[in-house]
Amino acid sequence: MNGLKVLFHINELSRWQIVLGNITNFLNDVGQDNANIEVVINGEAVSIFKNRCQPAEGGGLCDGSINGSLLEQMEKLSKVGVKFVACRNALKGQLVDEESLPDFVTVVPAGITEIVRKQAEGYAYIKP
Amino acid sequence: MNGLKVLFHINELSRWQIVLGNITNFLNDVGQDNANIEVVINGEAVSIFKNRCQPAEGGGLCDGSINGSLLEQMEKLSKVGVKFVACRNALKGQLVDEESLPDFVTVVPAGITEIVRKQAEGYAYIKP
Amino acid sequence: MNGLKVLFHINELSRWQIVLGNITNFLNDVGQDNANIEVVINGEAVSIFKNRCQPAEGGGLCDGSINGSLLEQMEKLSKVGVKFVACRNALKGQLVDEESLPDFVTVVPAGITEIVRKQAEGYAYIKP
Repeated sequence: MNGLKVLFHINELSRWQIVLGNITNFLNDVGQDNANIEVVINGEAVSIFKNRCQPAEGGGLCDGSINGSLLEQMEKLSKVGVKFVACRNALKGQLVDEESLPDFVTVVPAGITEIVRKQAEGYAYIKP
Repeated sequence: MNGLKVLFHINELSRWQIVLGNITNFLNDVGQDNANIEVVINGEAVSIFKNRCQPAEGGGLCDGSINGSLLEQMEKLSKVGVKFVACRNALKGQLVDEESLPDFVTVVPAGITEIVRKQAEGYAYIKP
Repeated sequence: MNGLKVLFHINELSRWQIVLGNITNFLNDVGQDNANIEVVINGEAVSIFKNRCQPAEGGGLCDGSINGSLLEQMEKLSKVGVKFVACRNALKGQLVDEESLPDFVTVVPAGITEIVRKQAEGYAYIKP
């Protein structure tokens, strides 16, 4: 694994656009082959995944919603290698069904543990 | 000293419940023997210790208060090894009498210096 | 380069006073010869440099303004070695003309990259 290692921590729902903009700017600056990015999501920030559009259930109603736009940005970033990791404690606390998460999101038992381990592996920590 | 080393930084009064919840989830995940946790408190966050219940002075009036509940959670965490460190500059700025602090809180001349030193010792930094 | 290495990250306009106070307290604690401090400014925090007083253009009108006071504090800190680094993406986003920046501010293509590189160089990260 080459490239700059960065962990973004988000725990406030209102900070999603800022986090995703930061990641986009960073990738534009260094190039996607030179970056290893992980986003650890805990606290209320996981509620971005609540009541999201389910294509099979008439998701069209959500077209153009703010959440929809953010989820699309996340999906695009995941396709260039950005990892999105959600905290199980937070999902439970925010009543987000784990089964309903987008495919590009993985779940860890505790987001804080993930943040600690990644820093021990040499990841820079950024809290936008 | 074994275990994952983590420093939590709190400088906003409104973030106490989140910080304490994060620590509790982390301890539940890794086990208290596998964690070295320090909480550095500066800015307005130190005002959690202001006008706290003083048992000898009729503290009963505070029973059930939000502050009281947070202080109880802190005390419990301190008993399983979590260190709480307050910044003297912040205590002065928030007019918190150092003598009135709970026994489990230690004071350092500058919270920022403590945060820097701990990161140099290999502590992960987390700002909930 | 000797001394404790610290990177302060600011991306909210409302946090300037807190950041500058933290730096001042830190320098008072360890001494300016024992600190290497860099402030990385992105997001809306760069708008502190917007419409600032331009002495040649009748800046007197701004005397005593909050922004003016903060800029003076920054300038003083820069004279004792604190580096202020602004993100070009943020300057564009906030419509701040790069040419209008104070002399003590340098510009990098992406603030996030700067934060990542500094942490890789051993700087502690602090988000006040």
